[in-house]
Order: sequence, then C-alpha cells, then structure tokens
Amino acid sequence: MNAQPIADAALHPFDTATALDWVGPGHAIGRTSPAYWAFVGPFGGFTAAVLLRAVLEHPDAAGDALAITVNYCAPLEEGPFDLEVACQRANRSTQHWSVTLTQGGGAAVATASVVLAARRDSWSHQPAVAPVVTAFEATPVYAGTNTAKWPAQYEFRFAAGAPDLGGGQIPGPTRSELWISDARPRTLDVLSLTAMGDAFFGRIFHAQRGIVPFGTVSMTTHFHASAEELAADGAASVLGVADARTFHRSYGDQSGELWSPEGRLLATTTQVFYFKA
Amino acid sequence: MNAQPIADAALHPFDTATALDWVGPGHAIGRTSPAYWAFVGPFGGFTAAVLLRAVLEHPDAAGDALAITVNYCAPLEEGPFDLEVACQRANRSTQHWSVTLTQGGGAAVATASVVLAARRDSWSHQPAVAPVVTAFEATPVYAGTNTAKWPAQYEFRFAAGAPDLGGGQIPGPTRSELWISDARPRTLDVLSLTAMGDAFFGRIFHAQRGIVPFGTVSMTTHFHASAEELAADGAASVLGVADARTFHRSYGDQSGELWSPEGRLLATTTQVFYFKA
Repeated sequence: MNAQPIADAALHPFDTATALDWVGPGHAIGRTSPAYWAFVGPFGGFTAAVLLRAVLEHPDAAGDALAITVNYCAPLEEGPFDLEVACQRANRSTQHWSVTLTQGGGAAVATASVVLAARRDSWSHQPAVAPVVTAFEATPVYAGTNTAKWPAQYEFRFAAGAPDLGGGQIPGPTRSELWISDARPRTLDVLSLTAMGDAFFGRIFHAQRGIVPFGTVSMTTHFHASAEELAADGAASVLGVADARTFHRSYGDQSGELWSPEGRLLATTTQVFYFKA
Repeated sequence: MNAQPIADAALHPFDTATALDWVGPGHAIGRTSPAYWAFVGPFGGFTAAVLLRAVLEHPDAAGDALAITVNYCAPLEEGPFDLEVACQRANRSTQHWSVTLTQGGGAAVATASVVLAARRDSWSHQPAVAPVVTAFEATPVYAGTNTAKWPAQYEFRFAAGAPDLGGGQIPGPTRSELWISDARPRTLDVLSLTAMGDAFFGRIFHAQRGIVPFGTVSMTTHFHASAEELAADGAASVLGVADARTFHRSYGDQSGELWSPEGRLLATTTQVFYFKA
C-alpha cells in the first residue's frame, strides 16, 4: 500500500498525520505532526497508531488487530522517523509482529509488538457492561485549556470525572467517563481506537489536581471487535472509561475501556507511566 | 549470574524449573519442566517467568521490573530452548529489553518486551482497594482435579468464584477471588508474581462451565512494588482477582489483580486468549 499524499485535503487529519512512505521491504518512513504534538514529543496515541499502521500496511499482514503493546523508550523528536516491521511468527490463526521506531539511525525510540488474528465465528458473551451515562448529544463538550496541541484534534464530553486542575483537595478522584470523538468526525477503526486509548488525560493530573511531569512508559491495548464490525457499526465516538489503581515510587497505572455507543466493548487498554510529584 | 545447579534439592521447584545457563552474551539456555506442564506446552506463567528472569540475570540489567508483555507465538516443545536478550534503549530511569525464545534454531516461539525502572521516592496513593474476602487460613484449599500438571505447584483457596466445571447454566460467572501461593511456600518476587498472573484458570472455563480448547495469545503484567518492598513484606501468598470482560469471535480477555495480604496492589495483568466454543 502506498503512502497517501500529504497534501490531500480530503483526508482526515489523523490519516494525514499517520501516513507512511514505504521505502523498502518492512521499512517505512513517517513524520511527526504538529497537530498531534504533546509537551516534549508527539501524543503517545499518535505514536501507537503509527506503529500499528505500519504492521497493517505490510503486504504480508493478514487478520484483524488483536493486541498491541507500545514501549516508549525515548522522546520522539520533531521530524521524520524510520519504522522497521518484521513478522516474528505466523500460523493459520495469528501473526506476531514487531516494529521498531528509530530516528537518524540511532537506538530504538519506540518499540511495539502487534498480534493480528483471524476472528472466527464462536460462542459470544460479554460479561462486562458499559456504564450508564448521559447520551453523547446531552453531554457538554469539555472546554478545558491545555498547552498541548493534540487535545484539539478530539472532542471530549465528560459524563463524569472531568479534570479539575484548579487545585483542591488531594488526592482528587481518578475515574472518568467520557465520550471521545475525533474533532472532525471519522468512523472508528483500530487505528483511531489505539490513539483514543491514550487520549484520557493522565490520571496523575486528576489525582494531583494539576499538571505534573508525566510520560507513558508502556501501553497495551486489546481489541475486541473486528475491522468489519467497526465499519458496519459506523460509529464516530466511543464511551471511554479510565481509572488508576496506584501511584507509587514515581510510577502509576491507568486502565481504560472503549465502548461503542451501543454498549459493545471495542477495546481495553492499560498503561504504566512515570510521574514526578 | 551463573545458572543454579539443577540437582540442588534446597532450591524451590520454581527456581529449579526457571534456571538458565548463560552460554554467551545475551544468550541463555533454559528447559521446560514436567512440573510446570499444561496441556500442549508449559504453563504460560512458567514461560513468562523464564523470559523475565533472562532479562533480570543479564549483567547490564538495572532497576526493578515495571512491565512485561509476553507474546505466545507457538507451542513450546518439551526440552531445551534458547533465549536471546537485548537492551533496546536505556536511560537513567528506565531500560527497555526484548527477549526472543526459540527452539532448534527456528522462528520465535515466544517473545517479550520488558521494562525495568529505577523506582524513586514520590507521592504515593492507591485508589484501588482489595476485595474483602475470607482470610487465607479460613479459606479452604481447592481440591479440583485437572489433567494439567502445573496446578499442583500451587495452592488455590477460592474465596469466591471457584471453577464449576460440572456443567450447569451457561454462561457461568467469570469473576474469581482467591488466595494463590506456591505449594511449597516461597517468598513472593516479580518472577513468581509473573507466573501467578497467569495462574487463574481460563475464564472461558468458568463461562462455559467446562474445559474447552484455550490458549493465551498475549499477556501484559505491570508491577507496582519494588523488589525491596516484596522482600521486606516477605509474603508467600497473594490475593488474586480475575475477571473476563468479553468472549467474542474466538478470542476473549482476562484482567487480574494480585494483592498482598496487607492490601497493597502488587501487580496487575491483562491477557487475550484464543478459545474454541
């Protein structure tokens, strides 16, 4: 698959930002995007989406995304980056891929393992239930200010647990329930779900009621719907639930769920992050 | 660090089973263990522990285990296996490692990414709370039979959600709360926590009330206590909580928490698995 032309105005900003140029077998070039910039590097969800996209665009890729783990090794600098994609093992049902992101021929800046799977028909049962929240349309759009650029690419509607960064009693509550959609509507796919899984504001900001140094170290996302099901649903927003379980000795955790508007669990995600507080 | 002699009777069976021989820089040899055998390969927790142990024994390893993701690519055959360990990136706070397990010079059988981290003092807060259950001593030991060998290496005491594999209304409940300890007591460390994170019986067995074809595809575990804290606690059992959120199109998920007897969250784990039902 060839890279999309950067200047195509019909493309969604997310597709433009995550576009790759394939320059050799298993070797693609991408570039950071001002639109998806955070504090000292890109929004982690952008990086994760790019790593997954590199696997899905590989000519040998078969099946749906089932799992991705992204390890954020160092800050990505503004500009181009190299992605090396390799299939470690494949059988009739699953493919195990690795991706390494480097810049300027240096050491790994980010790595990922990706599992693709043939989703065969089976017995189906969803024990988990989506939280009951105000409907998308009835939930006000969050208007919080933020010095990072990437939040402007999304629309957040908090049904519960909006960030309260103005100080107050510490620890603040860490659970949030919110509708997340691309600011310019875009039908959900595994790439946007991957990015949205990192679009919850850092739980340490909620707990500390303010911005502190923070960085995701490792993030894992599991996908529970097929590409076909996502396309058939045609939804452009997810109901996200995020919480933290612990902050200790400069590391904390976040777990998240991404639900379809109809109550189907689309993806689950966990991450460990560094913080200074 | 040299491999422990296999015949040392003073060693705990878990330490014997996961022992490695280092044969070159970043290259260790391990072997499967009859004691930790499952159905068509080793207990996945054994494999995960071996992959982590390979990183921790590397002479360049520094810091505590923070995160591990294990991808189970193919069944491990009985006998020896090779582990190739490489540091992808290191800074003052974190090290990112990769490990590949092969047999007979073939393709990857399992891969892992491991993050080690210097756990510095910080603000500390644990929003999550351990479930209230019967005390370890007051909870009866589970005496279920199982054709796999590895469960005999553990003692399970179900406070809630013991497997009921005798048939009955489907779907069965998927949540379990149980005390897990090594059958021969052993002080918890990150290696045993890694294995115990996979020691919950497959959630599909609970949902289906019976044994069906099942295999973990990818498992991620995050550690929330330092090696020093685990050693200081000196606990030999954890309170485990496991549940499933969805079973769909031949894949399902499991999430788990491992708590210390004092209510400290030691580790959290998630996995996606294949099932046939």
